[in-house]
Amino acid sequence: MAERFDEDALHAVGVRIDAEHPEGIIFDPHQPQLRVTDLSAVRGDGIFETMLAVQGHVRKFSAHLERLQRSAAITDIAIPPHASWRAAVELGLEEFRTRGGLPDELAVRITASRGVDGEPASDDPAYSGTYWALLTPVSEKVKKSRGRPISVTLLDRGYDSTASERAPWLLLGAKTLSYAVNMAALRWAVAHGHDDVIFTTSDGYVLEGPVSSILLGHRTSDGQVQLMTPSAEAGILPGTTQATIFRAAEQAGWKTSAGPVTIADLHAAQFLWLTGSVKLVSPIGRIDDHEVAVDAELTSALLEFLTQSG
Amino acid sequence: MAERFDEDALHAVGVRIDAEHPEGIIFDPHQPQLRVTDLSAVRGDGIFETMLAVQGHVRKFSAHLERLQRSAAITDIAIPPHASWRAAVELGLEEFRTRGGLPDELAVRITASRGVDGEPASDDPAYSGTYWALLTPVSEKVKKSRGRPISVTLLDRGYDSTASERAPWLLLGAKTLSYAVNMAALRWAVAHGHDDVIFTTSDGYVLEGPVSSILLGHRTSDGQVQLMTPSAEAGILPGTTQATIFRAAEQAGWKTSAGPVTIADLHAAQFLWLTGSVKLVSPIGRIDDHEVAVDAELTSALLEFLTQSG
Repeated sequence: MAERFDEDALHAVGVRIDAEHPEGIIFDPHQPQLRVTDLSAVRGDGIFETMLAVQGHVRKFSAHLERLQRSAAITDIAIPPHASWRAAVELGLEEFRTRGGLPDELAVRITASRGVDGEPASDDPAYSGTYWALLTPVSEKVKKSRGRPISVTLLDRGYDSTASERAPWLLLGAKTLSYAVNMAALRWAVAHGHDDVIFTTSDGYVLEGPVSSILLGHRTSDGQVQLMTPSAEAGILPGTTQATIFRAAEQAGWKTSAGPVTIADLHAAQFLWLTGSVKLVSPIGRIDDHEVAVDAELTSALLEFLTQSG
Repeated sequence: MAERFDEDALHAVGVRIDAEHPEGIIFDPHQPQLRVTDLSAVRGDGIFETMLAVQGHVRKFSAHLERLQRSAAITDIAIPPHASWRAAVELGLEEFRTRGGLPDELAVRITASRGVDGEPASDDPAYSGTYWALLTPVSEKVKKSRGRPISVTLLDRGYDSTASERAPWLLLGAKTLSYAVNMAALRWAVAHGHDDVIFTTSDGYVLEGPVSSILLGHRTSDGQVQLMTPSAEAGILPGTTQATIFRAAEQAGWKTSAGPVTIADLHAAQFLWLTGSVKLVSPIGRIDDHEVAVDAELTSALLEFLTQSG
């Protein structure tokens, strides 16, 4: 029985949402689900969110659903109501329980594709595309990587800092499936001896990681801690993990701010972290050839903020 | 029987390539083929080409396979040998013949996805991803649109003209599946009363359309015709249709050139066209609020060049 659980834990659970199953229906992610004409696969034309479920509780579900809705508005992709997504994810969690055990941590990815060109899946616009949730046990490797210092390289995202404002068709505030450049940047980093990437604008501002947000930290001589993050106006995704940390930090009496961050600001920062929903918090120990100080106590505090928030 | 043919003609034919079927195997594109973990659908992480088959003959197949190979090298995606793609497409054409009739024109899209993360489809790298060809009858609407004047809007692509050179991780010379921005730009154009888009750099250079190349034309007082197109160094896809037109034009004694094209050059051009493998040639009759002259004779000549080349 224990063996069966171990084996099943390696498997992911899929849940499809459609007009006939607004609360979701289970599928096996090892079996084909998508037509090759689905616009997710044809043109990366869809949106997504990745969340963390701990002991069956999805962290900051509302914040992710709100960001998905924002991406949907920017890309003009119709999506099911929040209740559908919540029910589908709950069904997926229940499937793990039925199979004999809920993994302590699951990565929960919800995806909305525009669907098949010219063939809406339903007359109801809220179900006209292709929608699914995928629940995957978090690997030991990812769990162990949390809180560990990483090396990052700064890579030019090609855009200047005003591109987002002047060219809305660039979809800079939406989390779309068109992630080929994000993945290419990560491959570039690994090929050059780094773990991750911080994107910068062509005019020298700091943006975000390909799959994470960036935090700058400072501890003043009187022990006061200040956190800062680049503002969303730069054309980055507002980080849900960063937002959770900031709220808890403010309650703990820390100072927080968002604003333009230059590359010079980055190099002048006392401490730096990348944050993400599943990897949580990674202190940055090196930016290209520059060493960065790491404060284990502060990193633990940030991780604790996320645990507190549930 | 005629009815059966008409009905089937509406259907597309899919051909999958894998290690067990290096020459392809037919599938029904109305049935699911892709897992939701396929990186094409997860992250738009794949590459593609779209070609035109006329009476069962694929135009400029070699040029498309070479460009696919170039995209594969830039994105580090392994692809089957050219012979596999040719055999798979031939199998798809044969399937139409078996069904009772080959449509006079088919759009042939070949796609290579990086596959499922951490689960190569085969030990043989050339078949480690997910590969398919999709053959779809060209609609009457597309056929009728050829040669008809269109209205375009100039949209900023966000990058400056040196981004391609200094930031190879932006994949600017690769034809990836991450086309969400291209589609958003086309939606923007339609919402603002235009048919198509010409992308420009943030520093005022002309790039390409979201799904086409751009040609500038000039007829001198002595009847000599000159064609020009933006050079590939700007970070655009080298157009296979543009290249075919240029070769035939040179044989006809026309002058051709490629080089940097500014927005001012565009507005000063006597004639303009968008070119693509399936839409072929569309004369531009308007750029935003500016009327552009249209020369039906020259457009016919360009279309004729493509027919000659077979």
